[in-house]
Amino acid sequence: EKRKVPKFPNGSTPTGETLKEEGHHAGPELERTGRLFGGLILDIQRKAPFFLSDFKDALSLQCLASILFLYCACMSPVITFGGLLGEATQGRISAIESLFGASLTGIAYSLFAGQPLTILGSTGPVLVFEKILFKFCRDYGLSYLSLRTSIGLWTAFLCIVLVATDASSLVCYITRFTEEAFAALICIIFIYEALEKLFHLGEVYAFNMHNDLDKLTLYSCVCSEPENPGNETLQVWRDMNISVENIAWSNLTVPECLEFHGVFRGSACGHHGPYIPDVLFWSVILFFTTFFLSSFLKQFKTKRYFPTKVRSTISDFAVFLTIVIMVLIDYLVGVPSPKLHVPEKFEPTRKDRGWFIDPLGSNPWWTLLIAAVPALLCTILIFMDQQITAVIINRKEHKLKKGCGYHLDLLMVGVMLGICSIMGLPWFVAATVLSISHVNSLKVESECSAPGEQPKFLGIREQRVTGLMIFVLMGLSVFMTSVLKFIPMPVLYGVFLYMGVSSLKGIQFFDRIKLFGMPAKHQPDLIYLRYVPLWKVHIFTVVQLTCLVLLWVIKASAAAVVFPMMVLALVFIRKLMDLCFTKRELSWLDDLMPESKKKKEDDKKKKEKAEAERMLHTGDNESVHLAYGEANLDFPVKTLKYSLDPSIVNISDEMAKTAQWKALAMSTENAKVNRPNL
Amino acid sequence: EKRKVPKFPNGSTPTGETLKEEGHHAGPELERTGRLFGGLILDIQRKAPFFLSDFKDALSLQCLASILFLYCACMSPVITFGGLLGEATQGRISAIESLFGASLTGIAYSLFAGQPLTILGSTGPVLVFEKILFKFCRDYGLSYLSLRTSIGLWTAFLCIVLVATDASSLVCYITRFTEEAFAALICIIFIYEALEKLFHLGEVYAFNMHNDLDKLTLYSCVCSEPENPGNETLQVWRDMNISVENIAWSNLTVPECLEFHGVFRGSACGHHGPYIPDVLFWSVILFFTTFFLSSFLKQFKTKRYFPTKVRSTISDFAVFLTIVIMVLIDYLVGVPSPKLHVPEKFEPTRKDRGWFIDPLGSNPWWTLLIAAVPALLCTILIFMDQQITAVIINRKEHKLKKGCGYHLDLLMVGVMLGICSIMGLPWFVAATVLSISHVNSLKVESECSAPGEQPKFLGIREQRVTGLMIFVLMGLSVFMTSVLKFIPMPVLYGVFLYMGVSSLKGIQFFDRIKLFGMPAKHQPDLIYLRYVPLWKVHIFTVVQLTCLVLLWVIKASAAAVVFPMMVLALVFIRKLMDLCFTKRELSWLDDLMPESKKKKEDDKKKKEKAEAERMLHTGDNESVHLAYGEANLDFPVKTLKYSLDPSIVNISDEMAKTAQWKALAMSTENAKVNRPNL
Repeated sequence: EKRKVPKFPNGSTPTGETLKEEGHHAGPELERTGRLFGGLILDIQRKAPFFLSDFKDALSLQCLASILFLYCACMSPVITFGGLLGEATQGRISAIESLFGASLTGIAYSLFAGQPLTILGSTGPVLVFEKILFKFCRDYGLSYLSLRTSIGLWTAFLCIVLVATDASSLVCYITRFTEEAFAALICIIFIYEALEKLFHLGEVYAFNMHNDLDKLTLYSCVCSEPENPGNETLQVWRDMNISVENIAWSNLTVPECLEFHGVFRGSACGHHGPYIPDVLFWSVILFFTTFFLSSFLKQFKTKRYFPTKVRSTISDFAVFLTIVIMVLIDYLVGVPSPKLHVPEKFEPTRKDRGWFIDPLGSNPWWTLLIAAVPALLCTILIFMDQQITAVIINRKEHKLKKGCGYHLDLLMVGVMLGICSIMGLPWFVAATVLSISHVNSLKVESECSAPGEQPKFLGIREQRVTGLMIFVLMGLSVFMTSVLKFIPMPVLYGVFLYMGVSSLKGIQFFDRIKLFGMPAKHQPDLIYLRYVPLWKVHIFTVVQLTCLVLLWVIKASAAAVVFPMMVLALVFIRKLMDLCFTKRELSWLDDLMPESKKKKEDDKKKKEKAEAERMLHTGDNESVHLAYGEANLDFPVKTLKYSLDPSIVNISDEMAKTAQWKALAMSTENAKVNRPNL
Repeated sequence: EKRKVPKFPNGSTPTGETLKEEGHHAGPELERTGRLFGGLILDIQRKAPFFLSDFKDALSLQCLASILFLYCACMSPVITFGGLLGEATQGRISAIESLFGASLTGIAYSLFAGQPLTILGSTGPVLVFEKILFKFCRDYGLSYLSLRTSIGLWTAFLCIVLVATDASSLVCYITRFTEEAFAALICIIFIYEALEKLFHLGEVYAFNMHNDLDKLTLYSCVCSEPENPGNETLQVWRDMNISVENIAWSNLTVPECLEFHGVFRGSACGHHGPYIPDVLFWSVILFFTTFFLSSFLKQFKTKRYFPTKVRSTISDFAVFLTIVIMVLIDYLVGVPSPKLHVPEKFEPTRKDRGWFIDPLGSNPWWTLLIAAVPALLCTILIFMDQQITAVIINRKEHKLKKGCGYHLDLLMVGVMLGICSIMGLPWFVAATVLSISHVNSLKVESECSAPGEQPKFLGIREQRVTGLMIFVLMGLSVFMTSVLKFIPMPVLYGVFLYMGVSSLKGIQFFDRIKLFGMPAKHQPDLIYLRYVPLWKVHIFTVVQLTCLVLLWVIKASAAAVVFPMMVLALVFIRKLMDLCFTKRELSWLDDLMPESKKKKEDDKKKKEKAEAERMLHTGDNESVHLAYGEANLDFPVKTLKYSLDPSIVNISDEMAKTAQWKALAMSTENAKVNRPNL
């Protein structure tokens, strides 16, 4: 299914019309111009008039809340990603490069992209690609940084080619089916990774599962000389130029013991060293408290207490407030929980590299050409990751007023990718969960809503300042280490869990999964349940679920690099579903119009129909009572209220109409027969 | 204000009428008969016909759930109370006596009491009284157990005198004001104590707040010989007949070290011994997980998933399921959290006492007479604790169908108190929070309710089996130690927190406290807010809050024994409020009719009024439209819907009426002038 153009063969008339109506929302951005850079020029023309307002519109406390929240949320993944890259590339690209790259790319993107609400971040496939590349270079004796730079430059070039050819207009083939399966997967992975990190703490901070409290006086774990030192150990000792006899083994601290390859002995020793008390359980407490507290504070808007202003401020600052509270509690309790470690100096991790990398370096000249092959893969990877996230951010539900700019987005990502490559920094593309969280944190909702009731969604605070400030702060983080080192990692993991869970909201796919466990009578009034048989809805869900599981397997396996291509496959699977679903059914299940809007239109149609029926019935004076009684059965309450509203039903008017109708339709005798009834 | 009799001077007519209407609910049980044991005989006559059904009605899975929940909930307080008594009385009355006494009293009470839904337990004032008595006996060289027995027998006698004179009918002076202040206080104390117990764990299981993970290899805490042993220590060593030189101090376990009065030395030592790793934080996790999980499972009934039967079963078994899950998790994790310790043998804690105590013993003969003085205090204490809880259980909101029996309740408590005294067991009276939890666990609610919506409350499963089985199981606990020892105490504390919090629900006093933080527009539609100015509601709440704080201070201070008398004082404070509130206002704020019922009646009245107005308006054909428009402004939606319901508004009928009315009221000319309009 195409996103907008009704020309597409299986756009049935009713769906086509609906989409056409909505066309002015998603339409022009994705139409192919046929001119070189045509789409890009249109994007710039469309976005330029908003550029000033993109800064003026940020004058709101909510934006400050958003900046603080997302700054905290973005820091940890960027640093973690850097750390992982550092491990994979033996420090050639590490935390500081990641921080610098993210900040640089983020600032440029926020300033000039088509959709500055998108937050750039590090993604899994990129990490996998870098790992493979590094391994390849090591095996074949090539310079990793140089080869990487040439691939990066090729990728940047290809991205610009894609921009020039308006390739982003292909995005219109991504329907809700694909979009939701992808978003759901990314959210689930986010949640999974948050929990996995917590479990990982269980390994790092192993506790004694068989503590006997009575024997605590007998427990100890001291360092001692290894009985049969291996060759490696002996080598280490020789390298250090130390005589083993002079080491006071039992006085060594844990890192010293590890350095000297000592052995931990004692009843309080785990596999890798002494059992670590309290830290794991304290981390668990921090993690879940962060999650629940931020969810609670976010929900605070709908509570009855305090004036609306206070409530919405608390709600906006929910995550940042939670982090502040948890940092304070953690500081007061004093358990040495793992903390966020930010590089303290602004210089490349390894001394043997500078801030500019030669694309050729020590590599043979033909590597410059051959680099185009992996660059093709990279381009698809970047394109898919970037554009599908952009589609999710630009979805109609968000009621964006300043339009989007897929071509401009891709140009910025491409250009910055080139710059990062030359500077030897990692690559950044749109990060789905961070972007959704960013948009959610900028939601403007009606303030006068009654408590408990869902506040009415008005739109998003579209501006460039939040994104800009998040990445400016990130760049300045190197100077804020004295503050940042108090932030416990489990708190940030809790924030990830919160982001993952809150991003899942509003995904129709999950509403449909929930239907499996719900008896029919308890099912909510969803628009597609009105028109599509339940079993067909279930089949649609099962297909989507299968796709998701397959994607998961690919993402988790060694083939993670092909993941973006597999997302493309979803588009074709969706196409196959035309065979077992009618076009009408698909229009209900896979439409891009928000649920509430559809329902409203449906109700409106029904109401009109009912109104028409009523008019007919009132024509026959005798049957009014009975007809109403019947209509009552399937009229929604709202319709009933409307049609019986005293400001609309005026008895004398109605009677007059009836009389006129009768005078027209019936004989004068009949009219006279009726009269005595009055 | 009296609970039922409208004769009372300030029972204004409207309130009086309402109360009279409701009179048949609370009325006959509390009327003074004027005959000896008249009330008791009536109680027996009233309850006897239900005796068989009290067993038949228990055939429900919900009753099993209730038994398991309350058995777990009751065990810990009874054992803790026994432990505290044991500490206070040097083991003369301890855990096993407490368990035996509770079981004995509970079984008898459940079988024969007027209100078997009440759960007996140990209360604070009783503990304070026993402590004072023990101290007194020790100071004056009297036999504690004997004096206690004679006081107990006097108390039992006085209770029977109270039964004989229908003293329980005084209960009718306890209005909602007193009842809620008391219930709120007990619930808050329950919550406070649950949290306090958790904090107490923080002292017992002190953790190292300044752990340096790098120095774990250097940490240890070993036992060593005290450098300057005090006289007491030297005495202990002499008593043990050991030579200090022979002790291998550093090989001693914690309890051995404490036994030999050794000193703990090392960087891993806290104030009272080695720092205890993990236990505290694990306990915190268990505590809060238990609380949230049981609350979640209890709420499961209102979710959309699974068939109604499954949901309501999960909801019924919420607490027991939670305990089972938490016990399993605790077992799997293996942290040595504090467990429930149940006495393993059925024999008196001290060898120097049997199961029967002589009321005189070694005491002088006049102690038998003088015991009547403390017995008076005890009687008031027992009477107040018992009857106010009974009032809370018997409140109209619970829709009890089998009636209550205040006189019979008191008789059973008195008789069992006498028996317990002779056997040297502690005394048991109605425990407020446990009783409320018991009633809540037996709530019957409409099953067909839509999800999310509050299910309709139908009544309580009134029977004697749950109470009976709880206390039978308690008696058999001595044989179940191998299972019970797996239950972690923090889980039980979590259950207490749950019970305290859930008992708070439905207390109007808290709804009123919440109003302080609520802007007027967000306030819920509470019936008293319709008729009483907000500032007066606030004054009422503040007075009640002040009473609660005063009660708290008394309960927490050494004067806890006079606490029940202070509850009596509440009745008089409430009486004083007649001076600054009108009778009508008090009837709204302090009435015993449930909120929802009042509101329904109020709505009904309004509707009738509106209906009457409408009839009047329709008389004048020209003004129908305008009149409706105005009425619209203050009609609640329900009323509007009703009055415009098509099954009621029949246009031709209305027209006919109008025509008839006109024919009657106006001249024939006027009628002719109107006709052409049709």
